[in-house]
Amino acid sequence: MVDYDLKSLLEDLREKRPLVHNITNYVVMNFTANTLLAMGASPVMAHAVDEVEEMVSLAGALVINIGTLSKQWLESMLKAGKKANELGLPVVLDPVGSGATSFRTHAFRTLVKELKLSVVRGNPSEILSIGSDYVRTKGVETAHEADEALEAVKTVAKEIDSVAAITGPVDLVTDGERVIRCYNGHPLLGLVTGTGCAATAAIAAFNSITSDSLEAAAAGLAFFGLAGELAGAKANSPGSFVISLLDSLHEITPQEFQEKARFSST
Amino acid sequence: MVDYDLKSLLEDLREKRPLVHNITNYVVMNFTANTLLAMGASPVMAHAVDEVEEMVSLAGALVINIGTLSKQWLESMLKAGKKANELGLPVVLDPVGSGATSFRTHAFRTLVKELKLSVVRGNPSEILSIGSDYVRTKGVETAHEADEALEAVKTVAKEIDSVAAITGPVDLVTDGERVIRCYNGHPLLGLVTGTGCAATAAIAAFNSITSDSLEAAAAGLAFFGLAGELAGAKANSPGSFVISLLDSLHEITPQEFQEKARFSST
Amino acid sequence: MVDYDLKSLLEDLREKRPLVHNITNYVVMNFTANTLLAMGASPVMAHAVDEVEEMVSLAGALVINIGTLSKQWLESMLKAGKKANELGLPVVLDPVGSGATSFRTHAFRTLVKELKLSVVRGNPSEILSIGSDYVRTKGVETAHEADEALEAVKTVAKEIDSVAAITGPVDLVTDGERVIRCYNGHPLLGLVTGTGCAATAAIAAFNSITSDSLEAAAAGLAFFGLAGELAGAKANSPGSFVISLLDSLHEITPQEFQEKARFSST
Repeated sequence: MVDYDLKSLLEDLREKRPLVHNITNYVVMNFTANTLLAMGASPVMAHAVDEVEEMVSLAGALVINIGTLSKQWLESMLKAGKKANELGLPVVLDPVGSGATSFRTHAFRTLVKELKLSVVRGNPSEILSIGSDYVRTKGVETAHEADEALEAVKTVAKEIDSVAAITGPVDLVTDGERVIRCYNGHPLLGLVTGTGCAATAAIAAFNSITSDSLEAAAAGLAFFGLAGELAGAKANSPGSFVISLLDSLHEITPQEFQEKARFSST
Repeated sequence: MVDYDLKSLLEDLREKRPLVHNITNYVVMNFTANTLLAMGASPVMAHAVDEVEEMVSLAGALVINIGTLSKQWLESMLKAGKKANELGLPVVLDPVGSGATSFRTHAFRTLVKELKLSVVRGNPSEILSIGSDYVRTKGVETAHEADEALEAVKTVAKEIDSVAAITGPVDLVTDGERVIRCYNGHPLLGLVTGTGCAATAAIAAFNSITSDSLEAAAAGLAFFGLAGELAGAKANSPGSFVISLLDSLHEITPQEFQEKARFSST
Repeated sequence: MVDYDLKSLLEDLREKRPLVHNITNYVVMNFTANTLLAMGASPVMAHAVDEVEEMVSLAGALVINIGTLSKQWLESMLKAGKKANELGLPVVLDPVGSGATSFRTHAFRTLVKELKLSVVRGNPSEILSIGSDYVRTKGVETAHEADEALEAVKTVAKEIDSVAAITGPVDLVTDGERVIRCYNGHPLLGLVTGTGCAATAAIAAFNSITSDSLEAAAAGLAFFGLAGELAGAKANSPGSFVISLLDSLHEITPQEFQEKARFSST
């Protein structure tokens, strides 16, 4: 049984409008900011090594996303992440493309080693690339089905002491013990760039409201997936879908979120 | 009384299609370019220290926006700004997030000190961060109401010898003496990232047509606000709103701009 | 007569979903990724000198676009391009703004000299800036009509041993001998940023399916132009147009592509 009080969670988010600091990739910055604004949070993007510590100090959560990584940005991610850890702020990591190149895989491992992460969200092959026998990712797509990867992901979550959130046809969230499946979502989410990254930002937004990272991860994926579901009921193609998606993120009421989030737990 | 000939201003803009050089933040580049194209101007984005002087020499105005600043970009902003000053081109500054971190506040002060600015556009806390007793900005949101800040902003405008344009529920434009209020706008503008930045670019586009920076600032805010107003009459949520906004920027006729811009002056 | 089997080409693309590696400009990254996803390919953006060789090794084609160039990025473009050449992968270049600044013109010439390019896509003044008597580009707009520039462009194509693809009211594709004109397109494409860049990415996607670069260039421009045409039949303004464009990229069937692509050949 999953009995999260999602209604209160979304009400609190919209009342507090938490600032979410994103050090994310160029491709998705605009969409991520619009996602956070539409759902009720406040985005800020800042990557300069000169200001990330000060900026994250103003925020309620930090998103680190390695989608268009360079060495300089990795330095800023570590600096911001350490400051967030010091302040007790949740740090949510999206290891985009880890496994595809050794540079990204190494960055993922460095971030995991140096920081205390609240949630790591990715597809199975990204998450599993933390291990030694990792597999190559085809771009940023899913190389494993989520369920096949479940046991390995549970082990990873325990080892890195972070919630792991795996997105796919059915999303999985685990802290290494408990596993929550989330059934909200829509196939067109796979035809719009940055939907995974935006879901990561949604998790961070909720994690700034609740310190229960398992709940935040489940809520973020359910909320974003529900917005996709509602958009998919109106739009059949990716252009109009992404517009409906942003509309839905804004339109979902706390009550509707509570009623339409579909979880199962083991 | 405000009796700007907005009809001619927009007609001239659309005839001349002025090139606006933007050194702006990653989040809003695409939306800013689309805003300029939709309204009738030509955007170019270029930030390399190796080419900004040559690029701005081809342009009718320069936009400097510190939204995702780094040291290297600040160097390019200064170089481009000095060249624009030398050529007598208007330089319009958007000090995004100034006051939030000392890095940004310092950058704002450096740009003000080193360059002759035509217009500085921001929210009250950003504009007032130029002073010594500045307040912390919560991300990129408004920390002060525009009207409360009016006297301080007038002082700033006089001191930095630039028009100050403050956006909020009612926009204020001042050169330190004259104050113009602009009533066009819509609440949904606050739920789309980069609308302030795009308004800044609209000001620059008009400033490449008229050398009266007070007029350009008032026209830019009124035009962008009017597009928001018309979009808000068609759309209720941020996704469809931003699409309607881009449509409106293109559809507003010179006559309509003249008739629907709503100003008052003191 | 142009008798390309466009139906099979698009079918193959959608079956194989080739990975297209883009080192492109900040302004268009999101739109380019969404274009590739909507049409049926897989985008990846990666620019770090530390990973571009490994990333391009996973891809079916490489796009190089100099729209927001810096020295560091040029280094990565060269490194990725050389690796792609070594692997026999098509490299498609978009010399955005070449001719506007000497930095970009020099970059274009360096890329042409150091790499074996499959296709270079630009407007006439960009393409012709490769020569010594090049003309200044007004931003990223067309300074020459395509047809006026035809003979010069054929010479360029021969000299640089690459297909040249020139976009304008009528698109021209040439390998220096054969010339294909493509009549698909819509005027609103000129009011949305990054449509040229996205067409370049579409060419690369097709070039990962067929090694005939003339065919890939013609197919890419026809496909993107057709999507614009279909969008223009539904939308009158640039905001709703770009949404319809993304929808159309997804909705065009292989059969429809074959029937509605309009070419002539000399």
